[in-house]
Amino acid sequence: MLSFECDYNRGAHGKVIEHLIETNMEPLPGYGEDIYSKRAKEKIREACHCPEAEVYFLAGGTQTNQVVIDSLLTKYEGVIAADTGHINVHEAGAIEFTGHKVLAIPHVNGKLMAADVRSYLEKFYDDTTHEHMVFPGMVYISHPTEYGTLYSMDELKDLSHLCREYDIPLFMDGARLGYGLMVKDTLLTLPDIAKLCDVFYIGGTKVGALCGEAVVFTHGNAPKHFVTMIKQHGALTAKGRLLGVQFDALFTDDLYFKISRNAIAMAEVLKRIFREKGYEFFIDSPTNQIFIVLENEKMKALAKEVTFSFWERKDEDHTVVRFATSWATTLEEIKELEKLL
Amino acid sequence: MLSFECDYNRGAHGKVIEHLIETNMEPLPGYGEDIYSKRAKEKIREACHCPEAEVYFLAGGTQTNQVVIDSLLTKYEGVIAADTGHINVHEAGAIEFTGHKVLAIPHVNGKLMAADVRSYLEKFYDDTTHEHMVFPGMVYISHPTEYGTLYSMDELKDLSHLCREYDIPLFMDGARLGYGLMVKDTLLTLPDIAKLCDVFYIGGTKVGALCGEAVVFTHGNAPKHFVTMIKQHGALTAKGRLLGVQFDALFTDDLYFKISRNAIAMAEVLKRIFREKGYEFFIDSPTNQIFIVLENEKMKALAKEVTFSFWERKDEDHTVVRFATSWATTLEEIKELEKLL
Amino acid sequence: MLSFECDYNRGAHGKVIEHLIETNMEPLPGYGEDIYSKRAKEKIREACHCPEAEVYFLAGGTQTNQVVIDSLLTKYEGVIAADTGHINVHEAGAIEFTGHKVLAIPHVNGKLMAADVRSYLEKFYDDTTHEHMVFPGMVYISHPTEYGTLYSMDELKDLSHLCREYDIPLFMDGARLGYGLMVKDTLLTLPDIAKLCDVFYIGGTKVGALCGEAVVFTHGNAPKHFVTMIKQHGALTAKGRLLGVQFDALFTDDLYFKISRNAIAMAEVLKRIFREKGYEFFIDSPTNQIFIVLENEKMKALAKEVTFSFWERKDEDHTVVRFATSWATTLEEIKELEKLL
Amino acid sequence: MLSFECDYNRGAHGKVIEHLIETNMEPLPGYGEDIYSKRAKEKIREACHCPEAEVYFLAGGTQTNQVVIDSLLTKYEGVIAADTGHINVHEAGAIEFTGHKVLAIPHVNGKLMAADVRSYLEKFYDDTTHEHMVFPGMVYISHPTEYGTLYSMDELKDLSHLCREYDIPLFMDGARLGYGLMVKDTLLTLPDIAKLCDVFYIGGTKVGALCGEAVVFTHGNAPKHFVTMIKQHGALTAKGRLLGVQFDALFTDDLYFKISRNAIAMAEVLKRIFREKGYEFFIDSPTNQIFIVLENEKMKALAKEVTFSFWERKDEDHTVVRFATSWATTLEEIKELEKLL
Repeated sequence: MLSFECDYNRGAHGKVIEHLIETNMEPLPGYGEDIYSKRAKEKIREACHCPEAEVYFLAGGTQTNQVVIDSLLTKYEGVIAADTGHINVHEAGAIEFTGHKVLAIPHVNGKLMAADVRSYLEKFYDDTTHEHMVFPGMVYISHPTEYGTLYSMDELKDLSHLCREYDIPLFMDGARLGYGLMVKDTLLTLPDIAKLCDVFYIGGTKVGALCGEAVVFTHGNAPKHFVTMIKQHGALTAKGRLLGVQFDALFTDDLYFKISRNAIAMAEVLKRIFREKGYEFFIDSPTNQIFIVLENEKMKALAKEVTFSFWERKDEDHTVVRFATSWATTLEEIKELEKLL
Repeated sequence: MLSFECDYNRGAHGKVIEHLIETNMEPLPGYGEDIYSKRAKEKIREACHCPEAEVYFLAGGTQTNQVVIDSLLTKYEGVIAADTGHINVHEAGAIEFTGHKVLAIPHVNGKLMAADVRSYLEKFYDDTTHEHMVFPGMVYISHPTEYGTLYSMDELKDLSHLCREYDIPLFMDGARLGYGLMVKDTLLTLPDIAKLCDVFYIGGTKVGALCGEAVVFTHGNAPKHFVTMIKQHGALTAKGRLLGVQFDALFTDDLYFKISRNAIAMAEVLKRIFREKGYEFFIDSPTNQIFIVLENEKMKALAKEVTFSFWERKDEDHTVVRFATSWATTLEEIKELEKLL
Repeated sequence: MLSFECDYNRGAHGKVIEHLIETNMEPLPGYGEDIYSKRAKEKIREACHCPEAEVYFLAGGTQTNQVVIDSLLTKYEGVIAADTGHINVHEAGAIEFTGHKVLAIPHVNGKLMAADVRSYLEKFYDDTTHEHMVFPGMVYISHPTEYGTLYSMDELKDLSHLCREYDIPLFMDGARLGYGLMVKDTLLTLPDIAKLCDVFYIGGTKVGALCGEAVVFTHGNAPKHFVTMIKQHGALTAKGRLLGVQFDALFTDDLYFKISRNAIAMAEVLKRIFREKGYEFFIDSPTNQIFIVLENEKMKALAKEVTFSFWERKDEDHTVVRFATSWATTLEEIKELEKLL
Repeated sequence: MLSFECDYNRGAHGKVIEHLIETNMEPLPGYGEDIYSKRAKEKIREACHCPEAEVYFLAGGTQTNQVVIDSLLTKYEGVIAADTGHINVHEAGAIEFTGHKVLAIPHVNGKLMAADVRSYLEKFYDDTTHEHMVFPGMVYISHPTEYGTLYSMDELKDLSHLCREYDIPLFMDGARLGYGLMVKDTLLTLPDIAKLCDVFYIGGTKVGALCGEAVVFTHGNAPKHFVTMIKQHGALTAKGRLLGVQFDALFTDDLYFKISRNAIAMAEVLKRIFREKGYEFFIDSPTNQIFIVLENEKMKALAKEVTFSFWERKDEDHTVVRFATSWATTLEEIKELEKLL
């Protein structure tokens, strides 16, 4: 069975596994105090051109969103997100679980537009009863978004300036950050993101690691006693080496970027195939997630030989599905899929 | 200064005060175990034609919403509400504070339509990833709504049947219930509401009491150890008599209904005046809240002599404001306001 | 039936009721913005000799403890309390409900000793793993304590200095503060308490009001957007006047102190009676709560004619019970009780 | 530097690593739906002689405690634990973070005695005010305990029977379960534990895995929608294979038990050495944690060549420290340590 249902269906990249093997029997301190975690943090600071960044490793995306948002928000604050944002839809209420409201704003192609956020903020402070409302205390975006779309440099700058104007942090969920960075036409580099965001994370789980996300606080703004808060959320990895060693490998010789580029290259090939064969695209995504409208009959037939994701019903006869490439996708797999299409 | 900004700007109705005075020095047990609380509960059961109802008194509306919703929801569930619902907008995140998401659905004149809720529920269970989402575990409506509108008998029946089909409770926020019940054209009676809702509350704070809401669980569905959960939320009134005595007075000789009728009668007069004078109505509300579009200049002039509520900006030159009548509004006050308009 | 089971079994003091009546029909803004609330706050600031104090009114004791503690603690902090402290035992977990641990320390006659707290704090910071533990972020004491005992001037000073040394607030639960202040031998005045504590509350529910506690932040340390947090906890009283008017009466002509003195005077008489009749005291309490060891047979007989509180079993044949006087207790009641003893 | 500070300072056992490598590039579904997770669950059910057991994998110990306890407790309940229990001391308040109180009871050698729990429960239900208290809704024990001690068969049976009498689940934290099972003199087998506990977990992080704990609900008592609750806590591992593959290896050919036995064997040797050399034992622990009282001078000298854990100060001149062996400890390491002692 061909497998295109997601970008986390394989283990880890070979070099990541190798590094785990070669360090496996070294006695190392726990909780991220090991040398590989420290080394990985240093490499990430360098890749971000952000020597003052504070880097922490967490195991998964929802966990990271939950811990970062809860730790940065004051108790009476909520987090602004696109209504399609992962935290608003697909995290089983992990943010509300910590007592905070997700303040959902209509999305534009999965993105949050600065103008809409500004209008929300202005309306909030304009409202004479806003002391009875949830204060907007952070802006959450994902890049790439849940629709595989990307913020342009200008769009991100606008959000960044707006957040600084209102003195609330801009947090980027980078669960698929590598795939966003390696798109040909994007101008946004990792250092740009470090400059424009107050906190973001570099996703490992979906980009070559067994697990792991690297949270980057960009300007000395890590919450006080952040390790304690990670522990309090049940999110502190005892063998922190598991995360540190993997990121050490991913940020050696640009591995993270090279393998991300593979996903994009494979997606480009696949999109060309879909286009040539006349498939309808649901949305124009430049990254590794491809959203296609299928007739239900066609969908059922295909599903016998290849896995993909249900996205949403379009109408009675059509369904939107998602094909995802990843760091591990090979040209052979694409070719096989082509035959099936 | 004339006062029309809300329906809780006076103390309590004279008979309520009297009852407080006459019972004041009786030694009574605390926490709602006193004879007046018991008596009031019995009277409410009778007024609801619902002998098996379990009645509890809480002090305020947000508190009641928080305690009832949190106590009835399972930990992984959220509550469906209109996006304009009080719990979604004006309770400072009191529901999320308890760990639950408000699942907001677009309103129609402040109301939640059964068809929209059904579509939400169907889409949810249809989604193959719904185990990663917040389960819809309750439907919250307010009657009258935040816009002063009312559910029709059919609309409420549809919601009730839908909730029973999906086995989730229907909860009615009746902070202004009296005002809803006393509208001439409504067919919905208190017994109807007790039949169609699983839990609702009869608002006292806005209808003649100093404070107090009477929560009614209609069919033996009060949460186990509900008193403990009230205490845990910091919401257990030590001198429960304060609530019991007031509701005892309100449900003696139909006082609750009579004083509610006054608010509606006064609102009718006031609406006629607005209409005759050519004011623009923002929404057609049959209850005690009247939403008017004012030119900003006019608004500022009026504000010098009468208080009313800011609702929202309409455009650069116009603002939506609210005038509220209450159990305490007199014809003299309406006449004075007429002069100012 | 004679009633000595608690100090909240009557309504409100006559002057409090009178003030509610005389202000009842005035139209007043909600949420504590009314003139009586402001006036009461001013009178409290004066009574505390603390012009910079920020005063807020909440409805009940558990609610106040929950809101104040949750609002002042950082997310990773807990609150130190005596193991017998009300928040640790009798609030149904209201503090943990907000995510914070109660760090219980063995009591001495219901009190927290500075030396024990210091030892706890030193051990905590000494522990190399304390980043995996709950940070002590506040000290909670009650005065009088749950055993009716009082802190001496020196004991309170020691706690106060310790808290300032560690830069954590000292919070005094004053649900029965009036009774503590009116004990003849105590040196601690209200201004002393305002000087030594960072936040405390003046209990109204148990001292002459229908409900209400006045929270005093003594040096500009009220949490930012405290009203929003009160609302978020479901604890904001819509008709704030209910609280403001009552405290306005209580702090006019020293009413609060005078009626507190009555409880103490009555308790003195009652203790003398118990002593003369050879009853065994469980603890030596100088305030309005008297703890007596009764033979179970005797207890059952008494319980037919007078109410008192079960405290704890002493042994198979004896039980500790509590008799409480209050602002409303009369000499006639004491005399009647004397006959029964 | 010799390393005896903990039992999680190495990566994973060779066979675990091998299994990760050989399955690494297989495309597998996420969230624990993969074949290796299913296989591992089946093997665990067999090892437990408990075919109806429901098994879930989580990444770490604190996370597991938090998710299991929060998911099983009703909202108004707390969890009984020894005051030295991990959840009470070393998890940064992770249980309180979810709204539940830890009801701490004095320990006996790190253990919770059934008689003490019974007395707590009886006192609770005896108390006429218990509706204002936190209901005891679960009993938490760790086996081995934080002191390395073990429950005897009788002690565990007594707790089990008591819990069933009161209809509350008995939960065993088995972060080091393997080490407990492999002690020569213990009678308690894995099937015994499955029979006596309602839920427990088999620790992987400290016994041969990179991360991972296997939670076992022993009689169809897994909480409804448990996966959703795991997700809500931020604890759902996207690449569930990481956990499944490791436990598949650990429960193949009794690997889990064999490597646990190594830790115990090495600890036996080490204890003999300490004994022969006249070192003072702080507590008599039969498992892989050895608690020794050291003179501070000696401690400092040793610390230059071997790592161990600070446990607590004994007096001004002495400190209690912990030496831990693990699945990875070799006889060579013990010999080297012997030389240093």
